[in-house]
Amino acid sequence: MHPTLAYAAHSPTSPLVPFQFQRRALKPGDVHINILFCGVCHSDIHQARDEWGNAAFPMVPGHEIVGKVSAVGSAVTRFKIGDTVGVGCLVDSCRICSECQDNLEQYCDNPVFTYNSPDPNGGTTYGGYSDNIVVDEHFVLHIADSLDPAAAAPLLCAGITTYSPLRHWQVGAGDKVGVVGLGGLGHMAVKFAKALGAHVVLFTTTPSKIADAKRLGADEVVVSKNPDEMAAHNGSFDFILNTVAAPHDLDAYTLLLKRDGTLCLVGVPDQPHPSPSVSALIFRRRSIAGSLIGGIKETQEMLDFCAEHNITSDIELIAIQDINSAFERVLKSDVKYRFVIDLASLRS
Amino acid sequence: MHPTLAYAAHSPTSPLVPFQFQRRALKPGDVHINILFCGVCHSDIHQARDEWGNAAFPMVPGHEIVGKVSAVGSAVTRFKIGDTVGVGCLVDSCRICSECQDNLEQYCDNPVFTYNSPDPNGGTTYGGYSDNIVVDEHFVLHIADSLDPAAAAPLLCAGITTYSPLRHWQVGAGDKVGVVGLGGLGHMAVKFAKALGAHVVLFTTTPSKIADAKRLGADEVVVSKNPDEMAAHNGSFDFILNTVAAPHDLDAYTLLLKRDGTLCLVGVPDQPHPSPSVSALIFRRRSIAGSLIGGIKETQEMLDFCAEHNITSDIELIAIQDINSAFERVLKSDVKYRFVIDLASLRS
Repeated sequence: MHPTLAYAAHSPTSPLVPFQFQRRALKPGDVHINILFCGVCHSDIHQARDEWGNAAFPMVPGHEIVGKVSAVGSAVTRFKIGDTVGVGCLVDSCRICSECQDNLEQYCDNPVFTYNSPDPNGGTTYGGYSDNIVVDEHFVLHIADSLDPAAAAPLLCAGITTYSPLRHWQVGAGDKVGVVGLGGLGHMAVKFAKALGAHVVLFTTTPSKIADAKRLGADEVVVSKNPDEMAAHNGSFDFILNTVAAPHDLDAYTLLLKRDGTLCLVGVPDQPHPSPSVSALIFRRRSIAGSLIGGIKETQEMLDFCAEHNITSDIELIAIQDINSAFERVLKSDVKYRFVIDLASLRS
Repeated sequence: MHPTLAYAAHSPTSPLVPFQFQRRALKPGDVHINILFCGVCHSDIHQARDEWGNAAFPMVPGHEIVGKVSAVGSAVTRFKIGDTVGVGCLVDSCRICSECQDNLEQYCDNPVFTYNSPDPNGGTTYGGYSDNIVVDEHFVLHIADSLDPAAAAPLLCAGITTYSPLRHWQVGAGDKVGVVGLGGLGHMAVKFAKALGAHVVLFTTTPSKIADAKRLGADEVVVSKNPDEMAAHNGSFDFILNTVAAPHDLDAYTLLLKRDGTLCLVGVPDQPHPSPSVSALIFRRRSIAGSLIGGIKETQEMLDFCAEHNITSDIELIAIQDINSAFERVLKSDVKYRFVIDLASLRS
């Protein structure tokens, strides 16, 4: 096999640069994928800069992967050459624990992440900032050809991270649902919550985002810095999905929940949030919960839902050569709403 | 009517002293109760000392009331003279909101608490540190004559506060349930969780409580100051009921929950807990929730459950003249596990 072309970080402080390595030879259950597009997730930056303290270098980030099947192992049953497929945050798990048996591989104690993870096949996993990948078919997803493959890439992380909690907490018609933050995750949450039939209220600190939030499907937009606007929604939400990872006052949202409502967090702040009010939880039996991406079965369900409802991410397509400036723009929230790398640029 | 004998606080800093006042005349739906026993709840101290900032003086505390029906209004259908009855934290609510319609009066926006609450009949409500009370029959509970009436009194607050979340989160056979703290609430939680069929683990900072916790029904006792003992239970609990109101590290318990497990708080700390880890929530889709006493229907269900399983509180019976020293002992957690006032002492 010819070497895999990629971009890698070699230290927490150096820019990503061209890098070559060899993917493993196909095992019977493996799918070989020529990568077309890969989304740029904020966690790519955290890990490339070793902000989570577990970086292995060189690191090839990328876990929002869309490509075409170019070869299949002898035991592969669900994919054939030419299929449009996706790979998300996980490429393996123990497969025998109760979490894996429940199709919730993301909660397995021994997950293998798509990059920066010890690889049971040896070495460290390398992600989607590369021109091909080899993945066990259990962790490969079908993507409908009706979806724009570039705009579908962010579904593999930003999509499932927001879809899964909306489904787990059974958001549907008649529910009033809040989404906090209009970024890569938040704009997907608005689209999903709307498609699930909920009345969707988007919370943002940025008045300039109001029009775009409504275009994306929000029924109402609340500027969260305005206490009167917030108070008007007291005790009225069934569910609020909070996509903001920066430390902030959670009580402002907890208090907007109905009795038995849940504020679900999907972002990990680098410093703790102010400690949430216990009274706000007790006096309406409210909950603060967390949710992590989604299992493989649910990721396929999400992708099928996207095909049915024609949902993809709003993206800005970039060449791999622009990845370092894209990182800087992500840190400034200067992207609508997800950068996606066109991996054809690796050969230019 | 002769005046009601009671003990009242007249300021946040003065001891409770004898006090007389007049209960309202019986309305058609009212039950007149001669109070036999009243439990001493920590919240009595908080309110008598105006630590919640809403004290109205004079204040007659007490919301764990057991007595005998001595008269009934013309429209009362569920009680007759001589019945053993209880009154808990609530004596009225709006009765028309969705919370009241769902039999969850404790979450009504306009509850009338048993004491220190504006009384729709005029003035301020006076509680159970007194020899009689007049309550609308909707808020009066039947108590089985098989239960010791003094030991049944704490069921009306400590009992329902722990029973309600155990039921709401559907604790039952096969579940591993934690109870944090062995006080008035915690010792009831152990009894209920055990009677519901769960495997019960009691967490305490006090090794001297181990034997008593096991006597009360705990299958295991963990000294929470021992990190190794705690770590042995990582990721293993379906539900943990945290009865400790003092600020403490919630992560120590969140991390012990299984995927989808809930840490339920029933105590409001006077200073915030350290901010809980968001990662601990996200990585197993865990929740931190709160729960407030229980509705009237569920309180009756709890009392019937207690009659069926012969569950009451472990108490120390005191005379009303000892109430001020009892307050001091409660603040030192020097009570096993609830003081109950014998109101016959009012006449001594």
